[in-house]
Amino acid sequence: MASQEWNYLELGNIRSTLIRQEDTILFQLIERAQFKRNLAIYQDDAEFLKGTGISGSYVRNLLQETENIHAKARRYTSPDEKPFTSRSQLPDPVLPPLVVPEEMKYLKSIDVNLNSKIYELYISTILPWVTKEGDDGQYGSSSVCDIQALQALSKRIHYGTFVAESKFRSQPEEYTKLIKAGDRQGIMDLLTNKEVEEKVIKRVQNKATAYGQEITDETSYPQGKPRGDQLLQVNPETMGKIYREIIIPLTKEVEVDYLLQRA
Amino acid sequence: MASQEWNYLELGNIRSTLIRQEDTILFQLIERAQFKRNLAIYQDDAEFLKGTGISGSYVRNLLQETENIHAKARRYTSPDEKPFTSRSQLPDPVLPPLVVPEEMKYLKSIDVNLNSKIYELYISTILPWVTKEGDDGQYGSSSVCDIQALQALSKRIHYGTFVAESKFRSQPEEYTKLIKAGDRQGIMDLLTNKEVEEKVIKRVQNKATAYGQEITDETSYPQGKPRGDQLLQVNPETMGKIYREIIIPLTKEVEVDYLLQRA
Repeated sequence: MASQEWNYLELGNIRSTLIRQEDTILFQLIERAQFKRNLAIYQDDAEFLKGTGISGSYVRNLLQETENIHAKARRYTSPDEKPFTSRSQLPDPVLPPLVVPEEMKYLKSIDVNLNSKIYELYISTILPWVTKEGDDGQYGSSSVCDIQALQALSKRIHYGTFVAESKFRSQPEEYTKLIKAGDRQGIMDLLTNKEVEEKVIKRVQNKATAYGQEITDETSYPQGKPRGDQLLQVNPETMGKIYREIIIPLTKEVEVDYLLQRA
Repeated sequence: MASQEWNYLELGNIRSTLIRQEDTILFQLIERAQFKRNLAIYQDDAEFLKGTGISGSYVRNLLQETENIHAKARRYTSPDEKPFTSRSQLPDPVLPPLVVPEEMKYLKSIDVNLNSKIYELYISTILPWVTKEGDDGQYGSSSVCDIQALQALSKRIHYGTFVAESKFRSQPEEYTKLIKAGDRQGIMDLLTNKEVEEKVIKRVQNKATAYGQEITDETSYPQGKPRGDQLLQVNPETMGKIYREIIIPLTKEVEVDYLLQRA
């Protein structure tokens, strides 16, 4: 998703991409939090789907239709974009492939995809944290927000492959030894940096605080007044939990899975 | 896009919806500004489309495909959602219609749609303001951002019908007289509130300032350091211009068009 002259594996570039993605995730969750939980849209063959010809869940269907379009726009040829729909069910890109920079060779060749887990945790855990219980009938709007939130989460988590490749290059011998030994825990320990994790969590909490304040015509700075209902849901505590319990662990799982296949 | 108990015409509710939409527009433009202008995606039958079977422009095609999905999700049955694609070319909703609250009767029956103008101004004016010249090959990503930005702009501008209906109800006699006389300028004068317009412009400029600052792990408040390239583009000056020259005039045009048909 960045320009072609960009070096994807330069640590400063990875960092600035991850920081941008935090904003996207926060923003998409704030958008989703306008609507209630609307559980029916996640249920297979829900009552409201009767007579529509849709089988499975409504969100799944809309997600696949969206991914069909994005696949044709070659979204899933980019190494940081993984589809939720099985690749075999998606159409081929209509556009000719982008030139893959040399440093992306490994990234392209290894297809780690944790989207089924991301989907599962989004519905079971993130949604109850960021939405109020109940049904407001806004099924279309909620689903469109869900799809954008899921795509943002997936992109952030799978950016772990870039992080892993970059870490590998900075310590090739250490990683190669662990990879050859199939030492999952050893790889996990080597790539874990608790201090950086805490900084990320603190930063997203600060973003949730800053974006969650009311901005008026009188001042350019936050005033300490929460802006509305959905911002009480997507608050610093929630954002911290989402990163600590879901995004960071899954990113590290992506990193380990990637490295084990890299050897 | 709000819950069913909500009274869409209550002024406080209209105001809070408009304020939310400012965030969405700002955010979608920041997302688009990551990528270069990429003019080819707006050109009919551009070189890169040869052999793809796509006729017309790439963005138009992707927009129509997206709207097909959203039409099935009944997006365009909501009075604040207008398609860019002609309604006759869109599929029917798959979901049963939502119950229309009583106060929305007029809003549903009058279909004002300025999207062709919005599309035109977005490409000719907004894009050059928020993107850097050039081509980075990120056609899919740029188009997905364009579509989300166009939808956000369209929704904000067509919310003018809600604003107009609410204004009509607060001064029915004055408006009815002008509407019966077909007095476009008189209606425009009556609904114009320069003071409110300036407040809106000031508020979006303040949002662009606040969201454009770097947020770190050390502080919950903006530090005065711009965050990155795309935030130098989508800056307070640009946001002010977009509102002053495009969004506010088009919203008022929607209001007048709506009222002239309301009689």
